[in-house]
Amino acid sequence: MIKQLSISARRQGLHEITAEVAAVVSDSGLQEGLCSVFIKHTSASVIIQENADPSAARDLERWLNRLVAENDQLYTHTNEGSDDMPSHIKTTLTATSVAVPVINGQLALGTWQGIFLWEHRRANMQRTVIVHTGA
Amino acid sequence: MIKQLSISARRQGLHEITAEVAAVVSDSGLQEGLCSVFIKHTSASVIIQENADPSAARDLERWLNRLVAENDQLYTHTNEGSDDMPSHIKTTLTATSVAVPVINGQLALGTWQGIFLWEHRRANMQRTVIVHTGA
Amino acid sequence: MIKQLSISARRQGLHEITAEVAAVVSDSGLQEGLCSVFIKHTSASVIIQENADPSAARDLERWLNRLVAENDQLYTHTNEGSDDMPSHIKTTLTATSVAVPVINGQLALGTWQGIFLWEHRRANMQRTVIVHTGA
Repeated sequence: MIKQLSISARRQGLHEITAEVAAVVSDSGLQEGLCSVFIKHTSASVIIQENADPSAARDLERWLNRLVAENDQLYTHTNEGSDDMPSHIKTTLTATSVAVPVINGQLALGTWQGIFLWEHRRANMQRTVIVHTGA
Repeated sequence: MIKQLSISARRQGLHEITAEVAAVVSDSGLQEGLCSVFIKHTSASVIIQENADPSAARDLERWLNRLVAENDQLYTHTNEGSDDMPSHIKTTLTATSVAVPVINGQLALGTWQGIFLWEHRRANMQRTVIVHTGA
Repeated sequence: MIKQLSISARRQGLHEITAEVAAVVSDSGLQEGLCSVFIKHTSASVIIQENADPSAARDLERWLNRLVAENDQLYTHTNEGSDDMPSHIKTTLTATSVAVPVINGQLALGTWQGIFLWEHRRANMQRTVIVHTGA
């Protein structure tokens, strides 16, 4: 089963989407299998990270923003804004999809794991995420 | 269904393989499901990135080449050439496989997304990519 | 089919788990399909890397330890130890799951590819890995 989700990413950074993905798994009726979450964009990621303490997500964002700086003299792909080329690099260093096992009809995430859409652009973006569930 | 592809990577950098993967999906007859693309190597990656403007791919290559330099004094694994250890690191920072949903018999890629083999070695390499399609 | 594995990661670094994953594939009886390996933690990764020469794994660990340093002034998430926030970042830069095709009842890994649990914490950790096999 496949379902497309439209997610509003109102600011640069991590946006938790665990509940939205869990709802698709629940609707699918799948008891045991695999759930894949794919993002149809090259300047935003999907990742799995700690969802308990917001300081972990915030440090992660700040660390990657420092590693992949805007206005780097190296960039030639600059016509779409100073946050565009860094966004492509950040997407490549993280992930475009994640796969989570489903056990007893639920996402088998660890205690501290959440699924996040990581928006790398600074504008208010509407993003499409595709959730696939299969045995 | 599984199909193995042999890809000639004639130079270091991104080589688009979207058409080759799409042909496997088409041959499989799969209407809805998931397509996984796996590379059988530890010094080349498969990633999804922008395929519209070549400057994005070029900046991505140059940025990663700067982050993961050759001839770093840290390396002890040097007997296979100065581009070998950086290639293992680059592979680890990117991806060995990608998974793309299939909808209406086609790869559900975003408008700007392409699938790329990223060759990290400088020599002319022949690479094996395995494409799996399943419901 | 899904099987949970409990892995003792006695030290920070790469721990090969190819044999454990291959045993699950063998037990499943699957002849052709995909094997997904997922780790239920946010401070350890699963990756595929060279398993022939230990110097490659060691350089990989040392390189990433240098890139993602402990005691970085940027961190605010510091209450779980100096190796905790670096562990979350390292997990995000590598992978929480890998997917390997199965052909003729076996993992279709390349000659030099092994599956590794990468422990980023310095303490002796017990980690849970979930292996899913499907057609």
